[in-house]
This record gives sequence, structure tokens and C-alpha cells, in this order.
Amino acid sequence: MSPDEIRQQLADAIRMLAHAEIVDHSGHGSARRDDRSFYINSAASVRGALTIGDIVTVDLDGTLVEGSARPPFEFHIHSEIYRVRPDVQAVMHTHPRWSTLLTMVGAPYKPVFAQGALLGEIPLVDSPMSVNTRPMGERVAATLAGGTAVLLKSHGAVVVASDVVECFALAAYLEENAYRQYMAMQIGDPYVFSEVEQQAFRERLRTPSLLRKTWDHYWSKL
Amino acid sequence: MSPDEIRQQLADAIRMLAHAEIVDHSGHGSARRDDRSFYINSAASVRGALTIGDIVTVDLDGTLVEGSARPPFEFHIHSEIYRVRPDVQAVMHTHPRWSTLLTMVGAPYKPVFAQGALLGEIPLVDSPMSVNTRPMGERVAATLAGGTAVLLKSHGAVVVASDVVECFALAAYLEENAYRQYMAMQIGDPYVFSEVEQQAFRERLRTPSLLRKTWDHYWSKL
Amino acid sequence: MSPDEIRQQLADAIRMLAHAEIVDHSGHGSARRDDRSFYINSAASVRGALTIGDIVTVDLDGTLVEGSARPPFEFHIHSEIYRVRPDVQAVMHTHPRWSTLLTMVGAPYKPVFAQGALLGEIPLVDSPMSVNTRPMGERVAATLAGGTAVLLKSHGAVVVASDVVECFALAAYLEENAYRQYMAMQIGDPYVFSEVEQQAFRERLRTPSLLRKTWDHYWSKL
Amino acid sequence: MSPDEIRQQLADAIRMLAHAEIVDHSGHGSARRDDRSFYINSAASVRGALTIGDIVTVDLDGTLVEGSARPPFEFHIHSEIYRVRPDVQAVMHTHPRWSTLLTMVGAPYKPVFAQGALLGEIPLVDSPMSVNTRPMGERVAATLAGGTAVLLKSHGAVVVASDVVECFALAAYLEENAYRQYMAMQIGDPYVFSEVEQQAFRERLRTPSLLRKTWDHYWSKL
Repeated sequence: MSPDEIRQQLADAIRMLAHAEIVDHSGHGSARRDDRSFYINSAASVRGALTIGDIVTVDLDGTLVEGSARPPFEFHIHSEIYRVRPDVQAVMHTHPRWSTLLTMVGAPYKPVFAQGALLGEIPLVDSPMSVNTRPMGERVAATLAGGTAVLLKSHGAVVVASDVVECFALAAYLEENAYRQYMAMQIGDPYVFSEVEQQAFRERLRTPSLLRKTWDHYWSKL
Repeated sequence: MSPDEIRQQLADAIRMLAHAEIVDHSGHGSARRDDRSFYINSAASVRGALTIGDIVTVDLDGTLVEGSARPPFEFHIHSEIYRVRPDVQAVMHTHPRWSTLLTMVGAPYKPVFAQGALLGEIPLVDSPMSVNTRPMGERVAATLAGGTAVLLKSHGAVVVASDVVECFALAAYLEENAYRQYMAMQIGDPYVFSEVEQQAFRERLRTPSLLRKTWDHYWSKL
Repeated sequence: MSPDEIRQQLADAIRMLAHAEIVDHSGHGSARRDDRSFYINSAASVRGALTIGDIVTVDLDGTLVEGSARPPFEFHIHSEIYRVRPDVQAVMHTHPRWSTLLTMVGAPYKPVFAQGALLGEIPLVDSPMSVNTRPMGERVAATLAGGTAVLLKSHGAVVVASDVVECFALAAYLEENAYRQYMAMQIGDPYVFSEVEQQAFRERLRTPSLLRKTWDHYWSKL
Repeated sequence: MSPDEIRQQLADAIRMLAHAEIVDHSGHGSARRDDRSFYINSAASVRGALTIGDIVTVDLDGTLVEGSARPPFEFHIHSEIYRVRPDVQAVMHTHPRWSTLLTMVGAPYKPVFAQGALLGEIPLVDSPMSVNTRPMGERVAATLAGGTAVLLKSHGAVVVASDVVECFALAAYLEENAYRQYMAMQIGDPYVFSEVEQQAFRERLRTPSLLRKTWDHYWSKL
């Protein structure tokens, strides 16, 4: 994909997450450009109306490489993950309602529906503070380790993937699963998928065509 | 009814269930064509915008008889029920939110409002896995036995009927009842209709004109 | 008011309650014509699109006096109340979500917000069956006695008043109060207004201008 | 700002709160004009369609100074606060759903998300009655003391600030925080921000540019 195609895809992904209320007016997403830089939506951009013009390029210290608008204060989430995870090509920082409610009461996130199994169990950064310093970014990256997602207590979520489409779909699945977990917790103790069940869903559902179908489904709701 | 009329009715039923969020982007419905084949929406079809062109015909082994698009992987739900239930002319596989939440916490489905009495108590397939093999389809059919509906743990529901309109209405009633049961469970222990009360509602409400009124009501919300 | 004005007002009231999801596709409302007859929407009428042409006139035995469409099977609710309550000029039979959920778990309706005080405590008909016979209608009227409203277990509500505008507003207040009571019950034990507080609100809020303001508010949401 | 600019800003703020369902058909907001008078929306104004023409000027006894429409009966909330808090330039009286539900069950309001920290803990007026007399207004002002907000049991909220934009944003944050607190309480015991965490958010988030961003965000949803 060309840089413009990647930036367009990134803008579309964030815009869809904003329409689904998974990103609010201050979430952000990024795509790796190379070892030392990445694309990210600007701090001031309107998430629900994002265009390619809202995507700037910054290096791993947050210095602008392309574009003139300031990146989000929490760019450290992205830079510190790109620094230590060469396999990661895209990062989403979302403010998802149901996932965050689980963190507020100390309830661990559990896979309770098919697509949720693609994320497995998710570690928690046990602080509600903003990730607006390099040490906080390093803490997020360290908690993520080799995984797919991190939850930030009373704050939000971070999801990483090997491309923008997968990152979008996983960010959506995380919240879809959390919604079901939260709603089930209101009337009882939800069944958690066994490791064998999770593995079966991972093998069957983490395919390019199904991830793309999720993208198309959210696209149709714009 | 002509084959085209049945396929149109089937497409309309699935489309209405999608608009009511009872079918999501991967649910499916079918209508029997004869002893050895049935109509079903294709795997790739967009459920909320379904047309007669999205309906294909397959035999009981899932082989395409008419049309060129692939049927859903879970066609076994339909084929195994048609195989052993000659009275069944239509089958809906839905992903209903509230009904599924009940299964997630092991709460049995109970008739708590008038239309819910048409379904009675509903057996559970105690596995969250996809019904994408013939043995899993046989398990669903065996759990259904001579009944009207089956719930699939943490997954969804299957409803059968003697025609598409009735199947649609019962799929809607199942979820309307589950919604009330779930909401009541949040504040207490909902009153379950007695067998005498259920029987009275079955006699009064399972009439072609009332089932059609439900169809028309959902149609008006498209 | 002329008969046509009353019928128009009745159609508007039911239509607004349908848009607020207090009346569903089978609720009904009536206005007294004289000692022996009343106006009511027909059984088949579409509640959310009601016009004056959907209003028929029946006597207290349900026999059509004007119009050609059948009245609802549950016309007995209206006729038996008109028979014994000469002060009542309008009756609404609604299917309100939150009020009904309270009845499903046996939670008594309690005044927990200002407008709810206009209804006070509300007696319950302890049966989920349809009010489609004269004895059931008499039971509803006897439970109502000299009051303003009755709840029907796992079924709905009946509200009476001295004109259509007041009846509409009280039907709306009943559900607005039940919504707050239900939502508060999810996190604790809601404060119930004292008799002195209720009396103060009744004196201040049950005025023609405030009832009309409620009507106008719902009208603005059509 | 000119008087017309302040009145326009006030009308916009109330209109946005009405669209967000934080103000209902009877809430009101004001902005100080001078030591002895303030601007306020009239009692009869339609909150969701407010224009500058709906703003009247009254003195601290509620007597009209400009305009011809009657102020709300509860103008005492505003006048008694302006009387004793010379630093206050704007007051909002809202009827926020989630904040009020907390008061109904006696649950104290707690800062559980970043913007909620700008309000801190909030005192309660332990009466559901209207603030339609000077003594009740004085009671509200005394409970507020030097703070930012007061909750009124089973009734609503009052927020004060140094200008209309800040007052609007704080009224919105109060309800956004209460929503999260309520929802978390349904599944557990939400984490309350420590005093250190609250202080950090107050320093970082109570800036003119972030308050204005909140205003712009709600504006985009009109």
C-alpha cells in the first residue's frame, strides 16, 4: 500500500470507531511508517469526520516529520510500543464504554463470545492517569508485552495488530465482548470460553476475509 | 406460493430481523423447497439489505442447487432439522442479544409475557461452538426434538415453524420475551406464566391474523 | 369541544404515546361520548400513525355505534370503568415498559419524582390475562375504585382522567416515574416521597397549564 | 463580551444541554449581568430550540428588568447564589438522569473519570421539593458554599462557574461522570480517584482550550 492509502485507511478506521462510540472526541490511532516514524491523527482533529488531511507523521519522540498539526499528548502509547514491538504495524487507543466499566470495578476482561476469543485475557495498567510521558508509555508497552491489547484503568484500551484493518476489527471485538460481559454480569456470572474453545475460534475467525467483513459491516453503518 | 414469492418472503423476514437487531451480520434463515432442498441467504449477503438475489438453493448436504453464492458454514442447522422434522417449513438462526445473555449466565428462558407463551420453555445446546459440521447440526436437531426453538449457549437461537411468517414472528417473540425476562431479573425475580396461562395465550395468539399483524408491525419500522 | 375535536385529540394522544413507546401496536385509548357510549381507536389501527378516521364509537357492550372497524377485544377496560365512574371522561390502556417490569417482580409502584406524585400509589390486578371479558373488565374497574390508575401484572397499565389531555399526561408521568424507580432499584433503594411531599406536588403540578405543557413537550418530539 | 453575545452563548449552552438530555423541558441557565441582575431563559421557552429572544433579564428578586416573559419559578437558585458568590458569573440548573439517580438511592457522587475530577465531591440538598422560594434558594446557596456544584435529591443539579462555557462544560462532565459511576455500580464498586489523581486532572483539564473543545464537541452533535 502507498503512504496515502495507509493514511486513508487509518482515517477510515478511526472514523468508524468514532461512529461506533468506541473512540470519543479524544481517541487516536496510528500506523507505522518505518522503524522511526508513524502516522497518527492530530490532537485537534474531529474523530467522527476524519480525513487524510488530519493524519500527521511523527518520529518516536513525537516530533513532527510531516504535517503541521500537533499530535495527541498521549502519542507515547504509540511510540513506545513501536519501539519494542517490530511486529506491530498499527495501534489504536480507544475510550470504549463497556471495556472501561469493567476496569472501574476491577473485573478482569474475559472471552465470553466468539470474536472476543481473538483477544484472550487482557492485562491492565493499574492507573487512571494519562499516558502523556515516555515512562507512562513504556509502562503501557511493558504491560502489553507480546500481547494484542491492554486495558487502562478507568480510562480506555490499547489494541495492536499487524495492519490497520486487523487493528480496527480487534478494537471493535474487544468492545463487543466487553458489552456482553458487562450485560451478563448484571444478571449472573457469564460463561468464560475454555482455552480449547478460544483456540478454535482464533483459528477459524482470525482470517483476512472475516476481518475485512467486520470492516465492511461497520463501514455500512457510517 | 410460488418459489419466487417464498424467496421474497424469506428475504423480507431476515431483513426485518436484521433491522430489529435480532439477526446480525451473520445470521441466516431458510425455507423448505422440498424433501431434499431448501432456500437460504448466502454467507456473504448483507442481512439488512437482503433481496431475492441473495437467496440460494442448497440440498441437505449443502451443495448448491440454484444460485452461485456460498451458503453459510452453519447451513447444517437447517439441513439437519429439515431431515428429521417433515412438519418444519422454515428455520431462522438468529443472534439475539437478550436471549443469548440468558444463556451466558445459565438462566433458563421462561415465558414472562403473552407472546412469549407461544414458545414455552426452550432447551439449550450447551456449547458455544459454531454449528459448522453435520454432527453439530444433528445435536441441534436432537435438542430441538419436536419443539419450536433451541438456544445455543453464548451464541444464539434457532426457531422453526410451519411457514416463514410464523417463523419470523416466533423469532421476534422469543427475543421480546427474553428482553423482558432479562430486564426484570435486574430488579427481582420475574413472574413466570403458569401452564394454564401459557395455554390460554397459545390458543388466543397463535392465529394467522395476529402473526401477520406482527409481520406488518415490524415491516412498518423498516 | 365538538365530537370531531375530541376524536382528533384522542388520536393525537394515542399517537404521541405510541411514539414514546408507552403504547405499542396494540394499546388503546378512549374518550366518553355520553352515558352509554365512547370513542376508541379500532383494533387494527396503526397506533403510531393514528388519524381521526381510526376512531370508532361503541356502546358499553362494545357494539359499534359509529364507524365500521372492530374495537379492541379489551374494550371492556373502558366500558366497565365508564359504567361505574361518571367522573371519568377519558381512559388509556398502555403497555409501558418500565411500569410493567415493576409488576413482573412484584415491586409496588412508588412516587419517586415530582410528576409521579400525581398518581400516588397504584393498585395491581394480579393476573397477566387479557381483559377481554366483562368480568375481567369489572375486576379492573373494581381495583381502580375511585383512583387514577391500575397496573395489570406482566401486561400493562390503565389510567383515567377528566379529559384527554390530563389522561395523556398522567399516562406519561406514570411511565416516567416507573423508569426512574426501576433505574434506581438497580443500584439501591429509591427514596419514596412522603405524603406531605406528594400532596405539595399534587397541588402545584396538577394544573391545566402544566398538563398542557407536557402535551406540547411530547408533541414537539413527534 | 457584549450583552447580546452573552445571551447568545447562554441560549446555546442550554440548547446543547437539552439535546444531550441533561436539561429537560423545565431546566434553566443564567449568566450574571451585574451585581443586581442576571440573564435567564424564560419559564415557557422550549429548551431544545432556544434563541436569544427567550432570554430575559431579572433582578435578584425575580422582577423583570428586560423582556416580557416570566422567569422560571425556581429563579431563586440563581439569585441566591449570585447574592453570596461574587465570583460566580454563570449558573445552570439541570435535570440530569444519572446524577439524579445517585441521589435517589443516597449514593454519594464520586469522581470516577478524568473530567469528573473537575467537580470533586458534591454536596446534597436533602429535599426533593422545588426551589421556588427565597429560603429554599438560600438553602441551595448555603449547601453550595464555595464549591462548584450541588445535587438536589430526586430532582437535579446546580453547577456554577466563572463563565458560560465553563459552566456548560462542568454541567456536562458532572453527568458524564455520574453515568459512569451509575453503570459501574451495577456490576461492582467503582474505583474513586485519589485526591492526588483528582488534583492532577484539575490542573491539566481545567484549561480554556479543553473547556472550549467540550463545547465544540457538543455543538457538533446538535
